[in-house]
Amino acid sequence: MIQNSEIYVETTSKIDVLDLTPEVMGVVRRASVDSGHVTLFVPGSTASLTTIEFESGAVADLKAAIERMAPQAMVYAHNERWGDGNGYAHVRAAILGPSLHIPIVDGALTLGTWQQVVLLDFDNRPRSRRIIVQIIREDG
Amino acid sequence: MIQNSEIYVETTSKIDVLDLTPEVMGVVRRASVDSGHVTLFVPGSTASLTTIEFESGAVADLKAAIERMAPQAMVYAHNERWGDGNGYAHVRAAILGPSLHIPIVDGALTLGTWQQVVLLDFDNRPRSRRIIVQIIREDG
Amino acid sequence: MIQNSEIYVETTSKIDVLDLTPEVMGVVRRASVDSGHVTLFVPGSTASLTTIEFESGAVADLKAAIERMAPQAMVYAHNERWGDGNGYAHVRAAILGPSLHIPIVDGALTLGTWQQVVLLDFDNRPRSRRIIVQIIREDG
Repeated sequence: MIQNSEIYVETTSKIDVLDLTPEVMGVVRRASVDSGHVTLFVPGSTASLTTIEFESGAVADLKAAIERMAPQAMVYAHNERWGDGNGYAHVRAAILGPSLHIPIVDGALTLGTWQQVVLLDFDNRPRSRRIIVQIIREDG
Repeated sequence: MIQNSEIYVETTSKIDVLDLTPEVMGVVRRASVDSGHVTLFVPGSTASLTTIEFESGAVADLKAAIERMAPQAMVYAHNERWGDGNGYAHVRAAILGPSLHIPIVDGALTLGTWQQVVLLDFDNRPRSRRIIVQIIREDG
Repeated sequence: MIQNSEIYVETTSKIDVLDLTPEVMGVVRRASVDSGHVTLFVPGSTASLTTIEFESGAVADLKAAIERMAPQAMVYAHNERWGDGNGYAHVRAAILGPSLHIPIVDGALTLGTWQQVVLLDFDNRPRSRRIIVQIIREDG
C-alpha cells in the first residue's frame, strides 16, 4: 500500500534547480503502480519542490523572479542573529513550500508533456539533499 | 480505495481564475466518501491550483499581486529562446504550484465557508485544461 | 487507515506565525503510525500552512517578504467592495496555499532538524482557527 524510497542529490553554493523527473519516474516504474499517487518531500528549511518546463530560459526566469521576491543581498534578521548568510534561502523555501504531489493514473505520472519535477536548492553552501519519495497505491 | 476522474475547462488568452468547487463537490458526492481526501492536479506548466474567496474583488487583487511578482511585459529568457511569449506564465505556475489537497471529513470537503477551489490559467492562448481529481478513501 | 483530528489555535489581529510542530508530532505519536503521511489543511481563505526554521529572525524575514508581495496598506478591490480591510490577507493566503503534506517514515515525520510546521494567519481580526490533521497509514 505505502512504499517509501529516497533520492539523493548534491547541490552547490549557488541556486540550484535540478530535474528529478527521471529518478521519480524510475521509482514509479519499479513500483509497478497502476493507480495511486507519489508524494515528494524535501527535509530542511532552505529547499523546495515544484514543477516547471525544464529548459534553461524558463529556469533562469524563475530564478530571477525568486531573486526579486527575496533578494540575496538584502539585510535579513536571520543573518544578523546567526551569521550564516542564508536568510534569503529560508524565506524562499517557506514561500515555495517543501512538498509536491502527483497522481499516478493508468501506470503513469499525470505530468504534462513539458512539465518536469524540480528541486530548488537555495542554500549558500553545498548540501547533500535527501528527497523522500512516498507512493500510496491500491493493493494489487 | 482510489478513484480517479477528470474535470475539463476551456480557458482564454487572458489570465483566467475559474471556480472549480461545484465540479469537485460533485465528484466527492457521487463517490459517497465518508473519510478520505481529494488530490487535484493540473498537468502542464502554465497553470496552477489554489483556494480563494471567489468574489470579483479578491480575484482582481490576486491577479494584481501575481502581475507584480512576474509581470507579463518583462523580458523573459524563455521568450527569447522559444518566441511563444508566455515566459511569465511559466514563472507564475512554478511559484503557485500544480496541486491541491483537501481532506474529506464526515462526507464533506473541509473547505471554509468562503473558500473556493480555483484554477489559475496563465497562458497567453486559449487552452483545453484537464484537471485530475483523485479521491483516496477508506474501504467501505 | 485514515484518522482525522483537529488542532485549535487562537490568533491575533496582527500577522501570526504559530509553530504547530508539537501538536502535529503529538497526533502522529498517539496514532502509532509506522509508515504513512499527514495532511494538514486550514479551512478559510485568510490563512496558510508552510514550514520554516522557527526562530524569530527567519520568521521576521518571512513576514517582511510577504508584506512586500501583498502590502497591507495598498488599495484592494476586495476592501472597496466589502469594507472588511483584509484584502491583503486573501491575496497572501491564495499565494501561500492552505495545505501541507509530510511523509511519516519509520514512525517519525520526515521534517529536517530545523524545520517546523507553521500556521500563517494573515487576518486583521482575532480568529479561532481549526487545522485539520489527517493521517493516512497502512493497516497494521
